[in-house]
Amino acid sequence: MSSSSFGRLFSVTTFGESHGEAVGAVVDGVPPGYAISVEEIQRQLDRRKPGQSAVTTQRKESDLVHVVSGLFDGKSTGTPICLIAYNEDARSQDYEKLRDVFRPGHADATYTAKYGLRDYRGSGRASGRETLGRVAAGSIARQILSGVTIVAGTVEVAGVRAERRDWDVAESNNVRCPDAAAAAEMERVILAAREEQDSVGGVVEVVARGVPAGWGDPTMEKLDSEIARAMLSIPAIKGVEIGDGFALSRLRGSESNDAMGPTGYLTNHQGGILGGISTGQDVVARIAVKPASSIGKAQKSVDASGKPVEVKIEGRHDPCICPRVVPVAEAMMALVLINAWLRQRALRGDAS
Amino acid sequence: MSSSSFGRLFSVTTFGESHGEAVGAVVDGVPPGYAISVEEIQRQLDRRKPGQSAVTTQRKESDLVHVVSGLFDGKSTGTPICLIAYNEDARSQDYEKLRDVFRPGHADATYTAKYGLRDYRGSGRASGRETLGRVAAGSIARQILSGVTIVAGTVEVAGVRAERRDWDVAESNNVRCPDAAAAAEMERVILAAREEQDSVGGVVEVVARGVPAGWGDPTMEKLDSEIARAMLSIPAIKGVEIGDGFALSRLRGSESNDAMGPTGYLTNHQGGILGGISTGQDVVARIAVKPASSIGKAQKSVDASGKPVEVKIEGRHDPCICPRVVPVAEAMMALVLINAWLRQRALRGDAS
Amino acid sequence: MSSSSFGRLFSVTTFGESHGEAVGAVVDGVPPGYAISVEEIQRQLDRRKPGQSAVTTQRKESDLVHVVSGLFDGKSTGTPICLIAYNEDARSQDYEKLRDVFRPGHADATYTAKYGLRDYRGSGRASGRETLGRVAAGSIARQILSGVTIVAGTVEVAGVRAERRDWDVAESNNVRCPDAAAAAEMERVILAAREEQDSVGGVVEVVARGVPAGWGDPTMEKLDSEIARAMLSIPAIKGVEIGDGFALSRLRGSESNDAMGPTGYLTNHQGGILGGISTGQDVVARIAVKPASSIGKAQKSVDASGKPVEVKIEGRHDPCICPRVVPVAEAMMALVLINAWLRQRALRGDAS
Amino acid sequence: MSSSSFGRLFSVTTFGESHGEAVGAVVDGVPPGYAISVEEIQRQLDRRKPGQSAVTTQRKESDLVHVVSGLFDGKSTGTPICLIAYNEDARSQDYEKLRDVFRPGHADATYTAKYGLRDYRGSGRASGRETLGRVAAGSIARQILSGVTIVAGTVEVAGVRAERRDWDVAESNNVRCPDAAAAAEMERVILAAREEQDSVGGVVEVVARGVPAGWGDPTMEKLDSEIARAMLSIPAIKGVEIGDGFALSRLRGSESNDAMGPTGYLTNHQGGILGGISTGQDVVARIAVKPASSIGKAQKSVDASGKPVEVKIEGRHDPCICPRVVPVAEAMMALVLINAWLRQRALRGDAS
Repeated sequence: MSSSSFGRLFSVTTFGESHGEAVGAVVDGVPPGYAISVEEIQRQLDRRKPGQSAVTTQRKESDLVHVVSGLFDGKSTGTPICLIAYNEDARSQDYEKLRDVFRPGHADATYTAKYGLRDYRGSGRASGRETLGRVAAGSIARQILSGVTIVAGTVEVAGVRAERRDWDVAESNNVRCPDAAAAAEMERVILAAREEQDSVGGVVEVVARGVPAGWGDPTMEKLDSEIARAMLSIPAIKGVEIGDGFALSRLRGSESNDAMGPTGYLTNHQGGILGGISTGQDVVARIAVKPASSIGKAQKSVDASGKPVEVKIEGRHDPCICPRVVPVAEAMMALVLINAWLRQRALRGDAS
Repeated sequence: MSSSSFGRLFSVTTFGESHGEAVGAVVDGVPPGYAISVEEIQRQLDRRKPGQSAVTTQRKESDLVHVVSGLFDGKSTGTPICLIAYNEDARSQDYEKLRDVFRPGHADATYTAKYGLRDYRGSGRASGRETLGRVAAGSIARQILSGVTIVAGTVEVAGVRAERRDWDVAESNNVRCPDAAAAAEMERVILAAREEQDSVGGVVEVVARGVPAGWGDPTMEKLDSEIARAMLSIPAIKGVEIGDGFALSRLRGSESNDAMGPTGYLTNHQGGILGGISTGQDVVARIAVKPASSIGKAQKSVDASGKPVEVKIEGRHDPCICPRVVPVAEAMMALVLINAWLRQRALRGDAS
Repeated sequence: MSSSSFGRLFSVTTFGESHGEAVGAVVDGVPPGYAISVEEIQRQLDRRKPGQSAVTTQRKESDLVHVVSGLFDGKSTGTPICLIAYNEDARSQDYEKLRDVFRPGHADATYTAKYGLRDYRGSGRASGRETLGRVAAGSIARQILSGVTIVAGTVEVAGVRAERRDWDVAESNNVRCPDAAAAAEMERVILAAREEQDSVGGVVEVVARGVPAGWGDPTMEKLDSEIARAMLSIPAIKGVEIGDGFALSRLRGSESNDAMGPTGYLTNHQGGILGGISTGQDVVARIAVKPASSIGKAQKSVDASGKPVEVKIEGRHDPCICPRVVPVAEAMMALVLINAWLRQRALRGDAS
Repeated sequence: MSSSSFGRLFSVTTFGESHGEAVGAVVDGVPPGYAISVEEIQRQLDRRKPGQSAVTTQRKESDLVHVVSGLFDGKSTGTPICLIAYNEDARSQDYEKLRDVFRPGHADATYTAKYGLRDYRGSGRASGRETLGRVAAGSIARQILSGVTIVAGTVEVAGVRAERRDWDVAESNNVRCPDAAAAAEMERVILAAREEQDSVGGVVEVVARGVPAGWGDPTMEKLDSEIARAMLSIPAIKGVEIGDGFALSRLRGSESNDAMGPTGYLTNHQGGILGGISTGQDVVARIAVKPASSIGKAQKSVDASGKPVEVKIEGRHDPCICPRVVPVAEAMMALVLINAWLRQRALRGDAS
């Protein structure tokens, strides 16, 4: 099992560096006989790609996905699906001057410590570009997971919070915020940070609807646990909460316990998961997105020899990555859920 | 690989139900030749056991650990260590009347949905008692992980926050709070909730010191990700944050990026992890603990047939489980770290 | 994942040393709701236990199995089943004199090389006693795998071959040979070897009937591959062949290809597996069992310091382990097949 | 974990169909900082490629390997290495007429049973072409495994046996046989079978020299077990034996136990593995290679509807695949050993 893999039954292994030849993924354990639309995979990749609006990086990449194997006559065959996107706009020369510099907030020093060497072109595997394969794989999962719908959006940016969850409007603004009014304010805040060569963070919420009761395992692989690992495996994510999450810690048991009536649960403080297993309600998670590490502003750092340097990261960077995290978070939720579904199907058959 | 297992190299599989014959764990992948003190394992279990003070359940269990295999002449042999603790004070009859009732906040309905049947004696595997094996396994990990020290404490209860991190005082108060003044207030709040047959939640912080730079993997198995899955696999945990976590999402990049100087990082907003790999600083995580689900107060629910019932959970329950979560969170952190260490040793040998 | 585990979905982890306190296994991933007879588990263990006849060791152990968890009201609950058998007749003192001696054919020197130390009481984990947990787990698998029947028997001992496959008679002779006439000759040969303080080897054949077409994976986890690893994980097994196996290498393609007619395959040279996937025919494997390593005859060896010694292994040993390998091989086949079934059910649901 | 993957620490996942766009592999867990020669990878692929001599298929493919990721400045970076070879000479039209026919000895019927559909262009994943990625990955492993040398050769074809093990001559004849005299006879036998539109099988022997004592795990993942699974995961392999293998079953314990003297073991009947752990001697395995399934001779079969058909497989096929199995068997041995090495390094550090 590779540490670049996610999922035991529906298994995704990503490969490729941001400034190498290509990035991609191998997806295995795909149930056979499902119609898989490459256009739909591309549509999801387009939601992730750079250059979509003023609030994201101005770098342009077409991120065209290429299916190398595993589909035949438009259907999954049950064999590994290899997906590749060749890198186009990789200006490695932008990075030559940074080869010996540890950029603050980046993984330069930690990669060097771990591996004893570092692919200094761009951020290598630490780049957000690694998530391209995840989004492609997640799209395949979503096309198979009939009955389950996953939505996500930016619900907070630099302290500006969405008060509404109008998921229909999330895709119609640059921030992917489910509250149109808040979206405008969030965009303003992001552009102000960009103006100052700085970046801002935020919170993304992911909701999965249509998940039946009974998915997830009760101890070491709770559904909460799998969602948490999936979300914190996304670059720049430093926190996750399920349901009311940290706010739950301020309630009383008599408030936080979701009471049940004849028609089901009366509230959903627990985010659709009890004892690690889905309740049949919406599964709800929120993730903390740190401000993008690459900023133009001067920062103090050191080079590989420990000598102090001032770093200004040139190039075209994201002032706020929340809008581009949204499709990645959806994809990771899809990967968690399809594995939970297949696992439950192994345990109980179709009866479950 | 079992869904009751944690860790690929140092692997822990728990077994047993709260009201069955015993609970325990099998620990495999233990490096050979390490002196393992059973007394120290027991000491950690005693920190987890019920009945320690007024703020925890009054149920009494000695939780005596029994080592069945894998140690010889006081040392690890490299073969599986099986640890068992027999259940003593299991009043199954307390639960007979609840056999068809879905207790609010518990996993009764979700287990039934998942498995089609349920061991209704106590909470079965969903009980906090399942964590006994984790604490025992974590103690073995800690005895081997020389140079790494793990501390944890309750840093918030029902909104009352610790302002200090005097880790030395954490073990000297009932709440395991690293702020003596806050501890007194927390205890008062817990006892008030207990008086009202209710429960409260809180936040536990875990800190690992002495972790060298270079542990953790860069993509799907980031150290953040492994900590997140470990923590959310603990019963009642509904959120986790690494370093400043959700607060990071309100900073600017120029603030959240930990600048470096010749002597190392100048701040630790990222919780000692960059790009999924340890920086050499303290590794810091905080987890959201929901209020204990078992409360004496009357709650609305249904039985297995969907008929409305009023539930009052009798017996001796924890008004706040934070103090008992503390050793479990430490143990899970130890299990994450020993796996990261062994993995790095596989990759680089002792040089790393 | 532990190196003491077998099976990804129906996962068995064994623990315990031959002369420690107990041996056993934790079985996880067990589909819930199946009636599991502990008597039937015991019946299988009795087939494996020492002291059954003159052709096996005269050591007596009752090998009573004890179910610690995972069953409730006689049914599997879907949670881990822990099975333990306490060691009774462990004469560790027999081994004290061998503590520094490397017994020929045993794993004494290799354990020492691997771990840097060795539990010298008996053979520790290298003992055939480790297979007790496998047989118990295999019995659970067999009780669940309705429609699949697994038989095995000794088909060769010291060059004496069974010419028939009367599986009904296999359990009625001491050698577990499916050819009554050959069985008598095999027994004679074994007793002659015992008389000379020596041991003999043989071949065991395992047949699984009722396996539907479509189980097994096509590349790295071919059904042949999983059977091979399962069989060679049994102590003393040094070869495996599927179907005609090595004899296939002497046929022509026009002979070895199993032709098909309207009612199915006309022959079964391939042992019921093509391209790693079951054909719907009997699945057939044969394994090479080396002569038992423990013999009373004087042998040349060295001690831990490299000094030459003469070794005579006292105690009560098996002159031929084939009859006791039979239930273990059946159990391992069951573990392979239940995993293949669950995997196929994950992939295709009950339709498969 | 994918069923198309081999190895837990040094993990290889293959992808691609014989008549799709490309085949390849993703290799993860590669220790960083090793110089990896792409020329050497290509050299190994050239040993596996079709069209090398009269005894193999006349199909021509250049099998050019393309490294997509994971190398930088000629060295492994520790991140996934993706290797691709595009398919060139894929005459899918040869197969159109076979789309509804189940070819004898092939996996056509079993794939259909497993997946409910089949990529009928060539043999899809069941093609020997899938092994290209394995050989590439194995070459990387061999370049890292300093001190270990792996050789293999054809030691039997259609009953003609090599009497010598002159490994130096194995690469200088078309059959890759370590006995020059036997090689000539083997070649004659193969060409005779080809003349009759038939095929023959054989036996390949693999030897690993320089493996230190202590590699391998003692129970479920014995080194024998890992070699067995690796070998039987190669297409057309139906048996494996370690050391003397099946011949061991005809020896007495006093003969088969490898005695030890002050300078080490005096014989190597056990193939360099005792109790699942390497002894420090040569590790020796032999595998049974069935006759190639694709033959021009008329064979009885059925189509997907069960109607009888006569099948003559046109195209350019291998009359004996032994010479092309040789580099694959070496590669799989390398993958087993590098995983055993990394696992031992995790357990003991460099000290082991």
